[in-house]
Amino acid sequence: MSITTEYQVTGMSCGHCESSVRAEVSKLAGVESIEVNAGDGRLVVTSASALADADVLAAVDEAGYRAARL
Amino acid sequence: MSITTEYQVTGMSCGHCESSVRAEVSKLAGVESIEVNAGDGRLVVTSASALADADVLAAVDEAGYRAARL
Repeated sequence: MSITTEYQVTGMSCGHCESSVRAEVSKLAGVESIEVNAGDGRLVVTSASALADADVLAAVDEAGYRAARL
Repeated sequence: MSITTEYQVTGMSCGHCESSVRAEVSKLAGVESIEVNAGDGRLVVTSASALADADVLAAVDEAGYRAARL
């Protein structure tokens, strides 16, 4: 079973921004897939086991954006 | 003497976009400095000798944007 968690990211404006977020979040252990959309700011992370929200938020911060768990 | 030429670029939305344009234009021979601003779309290229506009426009196109000579 995989776990899917949604976050709201603010500040992304284009595909480069999406790529930056994707690159950082993909470094987290256990991440299986990532959907990220600059248009609505939605980030959907699927992982093998539950991720710590703080880790996901830190990854987004590392990319230069702010996120909140939905 | 250096030559400064201005172009209007459409489609840039953020610093990543600026970086993409800068990276491509900087590959052109003779380019000394580049100013690029996603806010107003202005691209200012300084070069040791006159650049062919077509080369600058092609570089911007390669980055994924459109430009016109001002």
